[in-house]
Amino acid sequence: MLELRLVQGSLLKKVIEAIKDLVNDANFDCSATGFSLQAMDSSHVALVALLLRSEGFEHYRCDRNISMGMNLNNMAKMLKCAGNDDIITIKADDGSDTVTFMFESPTQDKISDFEMKLMDIDSEHLGIPEAEYHAIVRMPSAEFARICKDLSSIGDTVVISVTKEGVKFSTRGDIGTANVVCRQNTTVDKPEDATVIEMNEPVSLTFALRYLNSFTKATSLSNTVTISLSSELPVVVEYKIAEMGYIRFYLAPKIEEDDDETKP
Amino acid sequence: MLELRLVQGSLLKKVIEAIKDLVNDANFDCSATGFSLQAMDSSHVALVALLLRSEGFEHYRCDRNISMGMNLNNMAKMLKCAGNDDIITIKADDGSDTVTFMFESPTQDKISDFEMKLMDIDSEHLGIPEAEYHAIVRMPSAEFARICKDLSSIGDTVVISVTKEGVKFSTRGDIGTANVVCRQNTTVDKPEDATVIEMNEPVSLTFALRYLNSFTKATSLSNTVTISLSSELPVVVEYKIAEMGYIRFYLAPKIEEDDDETKP
Amino acid sequence: MLELRLVQGSLLKKVIEAIKDLVNDANFDCSATGFSLQAMDSSHVALVALLLRSEGFEHYRCDRNISMGMNLNNMAKMLKCAGNDDIITIKADDGSDTVTFMFESPTQDKISDFEMKLMDIDSEHLGIPEAEYHAIVRMPSAEFARICKDLSSIGDTVVISVTKEGVKFSTRGDIGTANVVCRQNTTVDKPEDATVIEMNEPVSLTFALRYLNSFTKATSLSNTVTISLSSELPVVVEYKIAEMGYIRFYLAPKIEEDDDETKP
Repeated sequence: MLELRLVQGSLLKKVIEAIKDLVNDANFDCSATGFSLQAMDSSHVALVALLLRSEGFEHYRCDRNISMGMNLNNMAKMLKCAGNDDIITIKADDGSDTVTFMFESPTQDKISDFEMKLMDIDSEHLGIPEAEYHAIVRMPSAEFARICKDLSSIGDTVVISVTKEGVKFSTRGDIGTANVVCRQNTTVDKPEDATVIEMNEPVSLTFALRYLNSFTKATSLSNTVTISLSSELPVVVEYKIAEMGYIRFYLAPKIEEDDDETKP
Repeated sequence: MLELRLVQGSLLKKVIEAIKDLVNDANFDCSATGFSLQAMDSSHVALVALLLRSEGFEHYRCDRNISMGMNLNNMAKMLKCAGNDDIITIKADDGSDTVTFMFESPTQDKISDFEMKLMDIDSEHLGIPEAEYHAIVRMPSAEFARICKDLSSIGDTVVISVTKEGVKFSTRGDIGTANVVCRQNTTVDKPEDATVIEMNEPVSLTFALRYLNSFTKATSLSNTVTISLSSELPVVVEYKIAEMGYIRFYLAPKIEEDDDETKP
Repeated sequence: MLELRLVQGSLLKKVIEAIKDLVNDANFDCSATGFSLQAMDSSHVALVALLLRSEGFEHYRCDRNISMGMNLNNMAKMLKCAGNDDIITIKADDGSDTVTFMFESPTQDKISDFEMKLMDIDSEHLGIPEAEYHAIVRMPSAEFARICKDLSSIGDTVVISVTKEGVKFSTRGDIGTANVVCRQNTTVDKPEDATVIEMNEPVSLTFALRYLNSFTKATSLSNTVTISLSSELPVVVEYKIAEMGYIRFYLAPKIEEDDDETKP
């Protein structure tokens, strides 16, 4: 039997909103550790990994490891019916082919339960090795989202270049070129406004803006985003989820050398 | 001669917005009692009845009973041009085939008059007998609107079941099932937040969500909605209009027994 | 070399938003006096004239007069990437076929530069003689925008009639007629709320609402709008831009006598 009670139900709503455009169907894995998901996007270019640790739930009962295949759009439709202040409980009976989402309003005057059919989804769990990155940028998530959105009005790909001084986002398109530089800045009033760069060696990588824009749907989950870059590895775009876990997006860099034409 | 001056002009704007999608053309009946309307929706399934009592108008002159046929979409276009704080006066000369809506801004610096052609509309006034209902639910109108909207993302019809403890809204569709229970609750800070159930006998009826959703366009007129149910009668969904009257929607229950499959 | 630094960068964003739907491509003229533009709309019916005086810029360097042809939609795409509090600098090297827009965030932590190709655009500068107008109406720009929008839901053209008492906007269409009268009113709390009429002789002119509605895209630039009318001249709809200049729209009146049918 599975019963996971999440007081801050809006977190689950935001998580599903953040990944539903990227992933259609996915297995949610439930174990003593937590509630997690790993899935490729439908074009098999990006990978998303989600973890909500068991400690983050008010009540967490998971008698045995199970994997529940869900259609994320249908799940999103149901979770949209939860109020932002509702407590959400995920329930499944052993051997059942359905999952139930229960929503309780803060006053307990309104109780909803939504039952959804589970699906059989083939998927292999990829091992993602811990890697060392050439550069790690932590910056306000809204700023990163704004830059990705702005640059997509000019071009299709972005070159992300990190130096000690800052991180530069560059693009070019039919109407011209654009460069946005965010300087390292740790002397800010609020820690979440800082742009912090940890760099072992300079790195400059090209990515499809389309995917980065999709990742930024997770912006509402966290004030900051961490971007980890290495020349031989997929970039990791990570949003921490309160004290519960994270949502991480992985995307391989583009290797067309043409993109280097964008002036440094 | 007809001259009805409504200080809170926004009420009339809201009334027309609430019914214009349901009813295309309708006769507005004007008598010493008040300004009223009774009309079937275009598919002849739902009935809407409106009353704005004469006492609610600052000035109310209606020399003889008249019935004015109006196209509600055109009327809505004109009323949209009134500011939310404007005073609205409805004027018609005897025997004229037009009606004039006059809008006065609170400062009297801007005066608008909009003249609209009247139409000849055949309609018979249905007598709606006062009935006794098995159950009457009063609840926050925004809550009812939210539930109807939420459930329509899952299914097409809703089963409304009333017991002493509460009212349950259930639906089912391709992606699953949903049940929302609102408990009777009278110990709230604001009286309009209460959910109050008067019940003679339990009742469980099925309705098309499409119409209920249309009725909830009247939500802005009142903080509460009253839902009156009887197994042999159309449901009445009523929104009170300040101290002036009401807008009532009538809808016959569906009698397909299949809908009962939705688990209680 | 050209380098124009505008601290209130949002002004330039608003200016381009205001004219980009009216004008596709246009030459921006830069001289010691200021940054200006004069262009016909794409259907050659309306004329827009913009002036941003050099004194309004924090730094203004323009070594020689130049004319820079720009596509306004592309320019708007780039300026949309500037934050509302950003400082915007327009730069061009002598003989270069590109212009650069540089955006600096208030904290200087984010610096963007957007480079756009210039275009060769044939255009002749029309001399607009200073004229004497029969009537000049100054009114709140939001009110004028609201009236133009409201009346376009009824008709296609508006008759603007000015008397000493006020200004009347009239239209007629299939669904009826509409008249909106704004009375002269100078005893208001805030000067920008006043409606002030200077009149030498009464005037009544007909205009296409489509263009007036397009002009009102400049509403965010100024709290007031000045409408100058003469029976033999195009109307001038002017929005002042802070202490920097103005944006003026010119539109010839329609001379179909039919429109006079709209009751005075």
